[in-house]
Amino acid sequence: MSSASSVSVFALTLNRRAAQVDQFLERALSPEGEDKTKPWPTRLKNAMRHGVLGGGKRIRPFLVIETVAMLGGDEKCALRAGAALELVHCYSLIHDDLPAMDDDDLRRGRPTVHCAFDEATAILAGDALLTLAFEIMAARETHPDAAVRAECVTILAKAAGAGAMVGGQMLDLAAEGRFGDPAPDAEGVRLLQAMKTGAMLTAALELGGVIAGADAPRRRLLERFGRALGAAYQIADDILDRESTTEALGKRAGKDRGKGKGTLVDLLGMDRARAECRELSAEAMAALEPFGPSADTLRAAFGFTVARST
Amino acid sequence: MSSASSVSVFALTLNRRAAQVDQFLERALSPEGEDKTKPWPTRLKNAMRHGVLGGGKRIRPFLVIETVAMLGGDEKCALRAGAALELVHCYSLIHDDLPAMDDDDLRRGRPTVHCAFDEATAILAGDALLTLAFEIMAARETHPDAAVRAECVTILAKAAGAGAMVGGQMLDLAAEGRFGDPAPDAEGVRLLQAMKTGAMLTAALELGGVIAGADAPRRRLLERFGRALGAAYQIADDILDRESTTEALGKRAGKDRGKGKGTLVDLLGMDRARAECRELSAEAMAALEPFGPSADTLRAAFGFTVARST
Repeated sequence: MSSASSVSVFALTLNRRAAQVDQFLERALSPEGEDKTKPWPTRLKNAMRHGVLGGGKRIRPFLVIETVAMLGGDEKCALRAGAALELVHCYSLIHDDLPAMDDDDLRRGRPTVHCAFDEATAILAGDALLTLAFEIMAARETHPDAAVRAECVTILAKAAGAGAMVGGQMLDLAAEGRFGDPAPDAEGVRLLQAMKTGAMLTAALELGGVIAGADAPRRRLLERFGRALGAAYQIADDILDRESTTEALGKRAGKDRGKGKGTLVDLLGMDRARAECRELSAEAMAALEPFGPSADTLRAAFGFTVARST
Repeated sequence: MSSASSVSVFALTLNRRAAQVDQFLERALSPEGEDKTKPWPTRLKNAMRHGVLGGGKRIRPFLVIETVAMLGGDEKCALRAGAALELVHCYSLIHDDLPAMDDDDLRRGRPTVHCAFDEATAILAGDALLTLAFEIMAARETHPDAAVRAECVTILAKAAGAGAMVGGQMLDLAAEGRFGDPAPDAEGVRLLQAMKTGAMLTAALELGGVIAGADAPRRRLLERFGRALGAAYQIADDILDRESTTEALGKRAGKDRGKGKGTLVDLLGMDRARAECRELSAEAMAALEPFGPSADTLRAAFGFTVARST
């Protein structure tokens, strides 16, 4: 099969999984799921839905589900855990877009939540989505073994917390110089990105391993793959941001440069950034090697991620 | 023992528990607890500490710990679960104080987090504290039984989510009229308060019951007590807000009236509000009756709460 048609087969699989995830999220954010005595306020619910249901590739749930499928685990459990991870991703976008943060008015080609609603509602919608993610993860339906559910909560909390995603967003704001810090060097940018975006992608692989009951050596391989994927994803994103237009991206292009934030592409140059992507690709493929052909979808996921730009 | 000296014995117990909680929170928010490869950014950490370690009665952890003590459960487990609950309470104060929300500059007699730092940092500090709460709750040290930990996560997520605390804050903003809604009547205010503050206080009792392994009937009694306590707490707070000065409260007094928000005191008048408090007291005492003398500390907690104002 040619590389082009592999990519298109992969895109179909990705879309099919995204439809499953969207269906789950639609239900999780609809009134039927609620306690009638304590209803979600309508404006809050609408803002949560706006922030979650407006498209998106659902790459994080995809990785959870495909990892579990590869290991022969229960895909329904994987769907719930993946959807919880996606809710955390969506909340982080809502808060990142706020005027006090990145001040973005466009996301996936639509107004951001604080533009479509207001700032207070956007803050609360993000808070509610983060909280809902943990409620879904801890629920009995997510896995029959409570120890697995508790471990999934731990993985999610670590990936989203001060030592990872939220901390990465903080470093990102600091990298703009707004608190008087010097601009980070390449190593600083790598740490920032590993925290801000890498940790949540790595968490997808870790969740897959835990849900499918993988042994410790396999879980370490999955984590290694996740870290390489996260790093490559970010470099690919920076290359794409450099080369694309706002129209094609559905969000403002080149916005990082506008704020004087250095990406790895800026700091290393396009050629060395692409070379780093290739090294990460080799690392990712080495981590998947012991899984044999069963890991082909994860291989394609890596290829798809990097193929966006390099 | 006279009522006055009961209150002072209770205040000593409350202070002793608060010191235990503060010690735990100090450790949870200090560098030693961190993964050295992904450190918490210093500014973020300092903002989290500012928002949590600035005093506070720690009434929610107190209720978890005393409920567990009453039922003969493990107080160390209760301390962790109570501290997690307190982190959620603290995050909610940080976000509620933001300019886009209640726009408060003073909290417990100190500058609010967005005043001491900045808005972006305050948003992220809140996000990180909410996330840390779930990390602490799900950790093995919180309870040897993973099913108990998962249930504690569920209780916390429900109490903090769109159908409870965050939803209540949304209703509170709507009650100011900023989204064009009519002002709520007494029933609407009761729902708002049950969601905004009642759910987290009720969660304290529920967590205590689960951690101590209470049976279903006892858990229902604890929940009933929690609901009555939450409602009484809020009315007492409104009475206090009406009668106090900014200096005595450590936060702006009478701020709800300034925004035209009706409290139960406004809607029912002082006498009927006090009568409602007495009814709630009878309800709370009835719920505790089957626990006999072992529930004396919870009884005193109710008295202390209401005694602040009535």
